[in-house]
Amino acid sequence: MAKVKKQSRPKAETPKGFRDYFGADVTERKAMLDKIAKVYHLYGFDALETSGVETVEALGKFLPDVDRPNEGVFAWQEDETADWLALRYDLTAPLARVAAQYRNDLPSPYRRYAMGPVWRNEKPGPGRFRQFYQCDADTVGAPSVAADAEICAMLADTLEAVGIVRGDYIVRVNNRKVLNGVLHSVGQDIVDETFPFGPRTHGEGGAEDVVSRHEDWEANILRTIDKFDKVGASGVMELLTQGRKDSSGAFIEGVGISHARAGKVVDFLESRGDSNEETIENLRKSIGSSTIGAEGVAELETIADLLAAQGYGHDRIVIDPSVVRGLGYYTGPVYEAELTFEIKDEKGRPRQFGSVAGGGRYDDLVKRFTGQAVPATGVSIGVDRLLAALRMKGQSATAAPGPVIVTVMDRDRMADYQKMVGELRAEGIRAEVYLGNPKNFGNQLKYADKRASPVAVIQGTDEADRGVIQLKDLILGAKIAETASLEEWKDRPSQIEVPRDDLVAEVRKMLAGG
Amino acid sequence: MAKVKKQSRPKAETPKGFRDYFGADVTERKAMLDKIAKVYHLYGFDALETSGVETVEALGKFLPDVDRPNEGVFAWQEDETADWLALRYDLTAPLARVAAQYRNDLPSPYRRYAMGPVWRNEKPGPGRFRQFYQCDADTVGAPSVAADAEICAMLADTLEAVGIVRGDYIVRVNNRKVLNGVLHSVGQDIVDETFPFGPRTHGEGGAEDVVSRHEDWEANILRTIDKFDKVGASGVMELLTQGRKDSSGAFIEGVGISHARAGKVVDFLESRGDSNEETIENLRKSIGSSTIGAEGVAELETIADLLAAQGYGHDRIVIDPSVVRGLGYYTGPVYEAELTFEIKDEKGRPRQFGSVAGGGRYDDLVKRFTGQAVPATGVSIGVDRLLAALRMKGQSATAAPGPVIVTVMDRDRMADYQKMVGELRAEGIRAEVYLGNPKNFGNQLKYADKRASPVAVIQGTDEADRGVIQLKDLILGAKIAETASLEEWKDRPSQIEVPRDDLVAEVRKMLAGG
Repeated sequence: MAKVKKQSRPKAETPKGFRDYFGADVTERKAMLDKIAKVYHLYGFDALETSGVETVEALGKFLPDVDRPNEGVFAWQEDETADWLALRYDLTAPLARVAAQYRNDLPSPYRRYAMGPVWRNEKPGPGRFRQFYQCDADTVGAPSVAADAEICAMLADTLEAVGIVRGDYIVRVNNRKVLNGVLHSVGQDIVDETFPFGPRTHGEGGAEDVVSRHEDWEANILRTIDKFDKVGASGVMELLTQGRKDSSGAFIEGVGISHARAGKVVDFLESRGDSNEETIENLRKSIGSSTIGAEGVAELETIADLLAAQGYGHDRIVIDPSVVRGLGYYTGPVYEAELTFEIKDEKGRPRQFGSVAGGGRYDDLVKRFTGQAVPATGVSIGVDRLLAALRMKGQSATAAPGPVIVTVMDRDRMADYQKMVGELRAEGIRAEVYLGNPKNFGNQLKYADKRASPVAVIQGTDEADRGVIQLKDLILGAKIAETASLEEWKDRPSQIEVPRDDLVAEVRKMLAGG
Repeated sequence: MAKVKKQSRPKAETPKGFRDYFGADVTERKAMLDKIAKVYHLYGFDALETSGVETVEALGKFLPDVDRPNEGVFAWQEDETADWLALRYDLTAPLARVAAQYRNDLPSPYRRYAMGPVWRNEKPGPGRFRQFYQCDADTVGAPSVAADAEICAMLADTLEAVGIVRGDYIVRVNNRKVLNGVLHSVGQDIVDETFPFGPRTHGEGGAEDVVSRHEDWEANILRTIDKFDKVGASGVMELLTQGRKDSSGAFIEGVGISHARAGKVVDFLESRGDSNEETIENLRKSIGSSTIGAEGVAELETIADLLAAQGYGHDRIVIDPSVVRGLGYYTGPVYEAELTFEIKDEKGRPRQFGSVAGGGRYDDLVKRFTGQAVPATGVSIGVDRLLAALRMKGQSATAAPGPVIVTVMDRDRMADYQKMVGELRAEGIRAEVYLGNPKNFGNQLKYADKRASPVAVIQGTDEADRGVIQLKDLILGAKIAETASLEEWKDRPSQIEVPRDDLVAEVRKMLAGG
């Protein structure tokens, strides 16, 4: 062997912000994703799997003058070509790339689902990792809001398919155009006031400043609207005007619009009615004369009608003016699925579980590549959050049982032990021979315990000579260990001797007898 | 919106060496992996999913003095900590890290399976990508070769589970210790001859040179042995001695050992007998007096005995002295699964399909981290190659049918069309409404064709008024389009009119009637 420079040992550590998933963590997630994929497939969506690596150019989140464009993503430069590559940060950007790259070959509309890891180069925190799963379905090339309605219906079906019962979730739908309509009316007032001597113009004196302040206001108002669920109407009112003390006593500066205008926004946020029809009527009032707002309301009405016709009523899908879905690329309907059952927060206070999926219409992502607008809409499920919810509700796939452990009493009779597990496996019973050092029998039972093994099989020389085996019921054994009195378990001893030939039948009986 | 510098459009391209997988490419692979996971699970292996990213230090393929240690891997430096991170290049290195990191918590032996993408920063070629799937099972902490035997048995079971019939595969087993024994005897001769005036010593005059030449010879001999399948005994003989002209006429330089010594190696390679017992007898002769060789032969004998006792005979698992499995980290038994059915190579010549999985014992990988040797053995399945084999044999999961397409004849009756797909989906029939621009009906049928849709549903105003729908059998339609004579299809028209209320029943009939 070549001589190697002596060096200190490497650390056995996951990189900061990454984690490992063991056993049930993997299989429960997989079982959930399988159920989701089944619904997506039933709805006509086809699978797509892109690789984890994209060109930074295609991901397109970056400014061209940044030397190392790895803000928010993990990126590196190729040695030969000097191209920047990066790990995908979501499944939508790769879809836009695919839709553009294969636009002449793909069916149009292109309906695809995708599931897999995405990576974010962000500061990790508790429960916040730098690699996590997403599970998306999108329709690319469908201008009609029927496509949005369909995704909302599918989202409801999906939640029920994985085990969230009706009544424990709600799909909330809004429309960016409606938000824009309301902002437009509120914002126009602001601009008129700030620059009262004429119409808004670009490139003349201080007009650009006014425009950018106007944009800041819009963004600030949207951000404040997004807090409605948390701080309520009075909180939003304060935040839009003079500011607010939060629960810790810290003062949050206000957006600084007048109470009259803030009132308009709050009225809008509170315009969710007892039925989708009522909400839509209220919205019509909120948007005033805004053309874009009216378009948005009409779209919401179509969505509500389509869904109602399919039996997705107000108990499942609700037009809700307070849905914003971040400040990103959405251009029309936005939607999110919220789980409504109560959980306790870290301090033991009850709160709703909250959002587990969201999405909306983004008509401009493919255009980046091709120059032609391609209407698209889609949803992304927060896999880890939904799985956490299922676990709380006892609805995640039950962990698979540990294997039956055939212990090794006599090292030379390994072939006999292997034969036993062979017979068990042939009948579909998960089983293995203990493959560690068999010297210490206690270690073998400790191992069986760690594996959550239901049954241990024991055959020493004596048993072999007599053609029998010992079966140890480890589940029953654990119960006995827990209870004070042995009396109640007398009828069913935790260890029995049975003929070797009855191995499979007797193990099966013990597994069933729990 | 903030103003953005105008820039040229990004290219919609996968990075060089990466690819996208569509529809059946995704679902067929998934179906195969599910079957493999089921066998691994039955054998008592637990799932493990590590993240795609590891520290370069933990991956440990690199020299500490390389400035940018991305030879063969995709690596980048963390901004804050200046740590180097990298995408995993296999699933074994992360397992070694996990086994060391959680050594106090994991059961011992730790039996885990893992499946997922790995990344190699290599020059891509035809059919050679920089991201691909691996699917591994390993037992860490099991010193006994019973663990190796078990993996070989599981490999055979796995191949049959995914659809490779008995007789179409063989699991070949060898042992590095046997190879070392043979090399030792051959190599010792060489050293004696090159440095004939005394025993081999380090650090004295030219002795180190001799040792390193000895190592080169060993590596060269191993590399040559690895070509045995391809060039046969006479080819290996030439390559070990004076060199060989390959089929293109190019001359490959020989290793330069004597014919007598090369003969020893070739005898060894050809020592595979008609039974594992016979092979083992032959091997005993080949290794001469080598202690390590004798140990290896004894291990192979144990493996063969264990497997035979479980019914894995010479028709499935074969001791084969010519198995090398690269020059990597293996320390004991090595094994590979080969598919033996014939395929045609690029030039139309028949050849065996070849290797689809391989592995072996590597006792030193965990030691890197902990300083303590941890015996481990495991197998990795080449997912893409195995899937390719299944496709050739017609054994891959059949592609799911396309969705039933409900066409849009009247834009205002979208709710009716959505209701139809709702009814179909409720009965488990994959279905969707056409969501593109419905203006051109031809486009809708073209879309149905691209989606491999079996049935199109058509309902215009006229049909709606009469309470009927048209069902178009697209599979039958395609058949009609292919044949010259329409006569034979007269009995079964490809388009029928049925009552609207019979939608589900009639579609089901058409789907079944193929």
